Amino acid sequence: MIENKYYSQDLHGPYELYDLGDFDLEEGGTIPNCKIAYNTLGKLNAAKDNAIVVTAWYSGTTKIMEQIYIGEDHALDPNKYFIILINQIGGGLSSSPHNSPAPYGMADFPKVRISDDVRAQYKVITEKFGIEKLALVFGASMGGQQVWEWAVRYPDMMERIAPVAITAKNSSHAFIFAETLNNALMSDANFNAGNYKNCSDVKTGLFRQARLWAVMGLNPEFYRQEHWQNMGFNSPEDFITGFLETYYEPLDPNDLLCQVWKWQRGDVSRNIGGDLKKALSRIKAKTMIMGFKGDMFVPEADLKYEHEMIAGSELRMIDTICGHFALFSLEPGYIQQINKNLNDLLSG
Amino acid sequence: MIENKYYSQDLHGPYELYDLGDFDLEEGGTIPNCKIAYNTLGKLNAAKDNAIVVTAWYSGTTKIMEQIYIGEDHALDPNKYFIILINQIGGGLSSSPHNSPAPYGMADFPKVRISDDVRAQYKVITEKFGIEKLALVFGASMGGQQVWEWAVRYPDMMERIAPVAITAKNSSHAFIFAETLNNALMSDANFNAGNYKNCSDVKTGLFRQARLWAVMGLNPEFYRQEHWQNMGFNSPEDFITGFLETYYEPLDPNDLLCQVWKWQRGDVSRNIGGDLKKALSRIKAKTMIMGFKGDMFVPEADLKYEHEMIAGSELRMIDTICGHFALFSLEPGYIQQINKNLNDLLSG
Repeated sequence: MIENKYYSQDLHGPYELYDLGDFDLEEGGTIPNCKIAYNTLGKLNAAKDNAIVVTAWYSGTTKIMEQIYIGEDHALDPNKYFIILINQIGGGLSSSPHNSPAPYGMADFPKVRISDDVRAQYKVITEKFGIEKLALVFGASMGGQQVWEWAVRYPDMMERIAPVAITAKNSSHAFIFAETLNNALMSDANFNAGNYKNCSDVKTGLFRQARLWAVMGLNPEFYRQEHWQNMGFNSPEDFITGFLETYYEPLDPNDLLCQVWKWQRGDVSRNIGGDLKKALSRIKAKTMIMGFKGDMFVPEADLKYEHEMIAGSELRMIDTICGHFALFSLEPGYIQQINKNLNDLLSG
Repeated sequence: MIENKYYSQDLHGPYELYDLGDFDLEEGGTIPNCKIAYNTLGKLNAAKDNAIVVTAWYSGTTKIMEQIYIGEDHALDPNKYFIILINQIGGGLSSSPHNSPAPYGMADFPKVRISDDVRAQYKVITEKFGIEKLALVFGASMGGQQVWEWAVRYPDMMERIAPVAITAKNSSHAFIFAETLNNALMSDANFNAGNYKNCSDVKTGLFRQARLWAVMGLNPEFYRQEHWQNMGFNSPEDFITGFLETYYEPLDPNDLLCQVWKWQRGDVSRNIGGDLKKALSRIKAKTMIMGFKGDMFVPEADLKYEHEMIAGSELRMIDTICGHFALFSLEPGYIQQINKNLNDLLSG
């Protein structure tokens, strides 16, 4: 357990913590007094049918989801919906390697799965709020893996799902890419098998990871059109140091490794004998899959493959030149496309 | 200077060495007694108009070009053409960091540019063979950068060019990707600023680089279709260790760094004030650009952008599920497409 001021109410609040008690994990470990960080916006109506769950992606908390995707000028309007922003285990606000005491903190934090996250989130939604049916579960990238797991595990719990830029079963290619992110962190001479004193000791590793994201998070088109200029940077290198390294620098390496482990193994068919089609056929929610043109590790073909297994689902590709990191809303017109799609979904 | 049995006549021969004498480089250094490794197949005809130059890509020597692209069942048929396979500086057979003596060997090897390679190759072709016009200059990936430079620098020296899976000006995205390859090598604790005793000391770094190629050299489609099975491997991990790590393990890190430096800065407009369109307008050769569908860092859009600047040029995309590494001829039908395109070009 170490202090990290990045994961704070100041920077990521306000948020509440819901204590699940001792939370048993699918891989066999237990997180004592497992805490899930959440925040709500808007009001739950009397019928309790206007609740939307929004999940968090790799490296981020739900604060960035709130900043980008939620507001009265967005489809996810707190004037209409009761929006529950909920943070994953290992994400830095909920129970995570860096904020957990010995003997299960830091490198000793147990292995967590996406399915553990969703079981934990289900408890918060049902126990804390008494909600029986969600209007929508929405999330992007790793947050979308949680959306997929919600829909397959609790098919009667929601009217709609909108997973963005992510497959229900993680691809081999994304697994291998994610492993290079781990290697970048662990290649730092100060990583010390996860027992560093301060995440700034592992800055070299965090910067190495940032530079892998410069290749895979963006894409050739982003650089060819020099979109970094529109973002206020002077060169690709200025963009990498000013945007990507700055973003990754304060993050906790053990927390990131915990998240990557889950991301790599995300697979809704895991508890259904590995039969992906059968797993996806459990989905009852109206399903709108969104993807990003030019995404380097979640390409349209992979999304289409799963989309075709889900009767009545829709796949919409977002026009973007920013690849996977489109989800940070880096260009004009991005959020309008998301809002249009979510409005169409929510009105149906 | 260290011994490396990989770069040998046994494994990469037969080859000859042409001594350029003291070779001055564009960046200001000099390579004393700079040697260019080459091999020829077929016979130069009396008219001296059947010569084809074939260049080498990053990490490889021309041996693999010979094995994949040349033969009586290929467009590049030694029964018809006099084929000169020529190796780049820093490629391991020609003068390179690992085989150069102090004080300009290993980490002290001077910075080399693609344009240096092509000036060196021009000397071999004209001085050694007395050839005034080439029927074709052919190369893939970094070998294709040499093809582009040939065509812009010596526009009257060839009838045709066929650069494969490479742009005439390297992209920012490819530059950033290439930098992660360098970081992978240099992150090895035994790299010792390039003054290692044996390249096997830097095995960890070489394996890290191999794993970056697993992401960027192949692509999502390769893994989704489990093409590694067709190649005789049992899993993605088996493919990475058995194919990629095995391939990179014997290579010399300083040689690779020398090559990457060139690759990153490949730009035919460098000596023409940075005006790419003007540089490409110098080309007189009949130009057939080939690209690979799904190439992660040389996408069709980047090739099309340059193709449209070259009057009369043709762009043909090769059907493949192997991304950039299609150039290793990893699937049925690949070499047939290359042969078809080259035959069309050579018959025109």
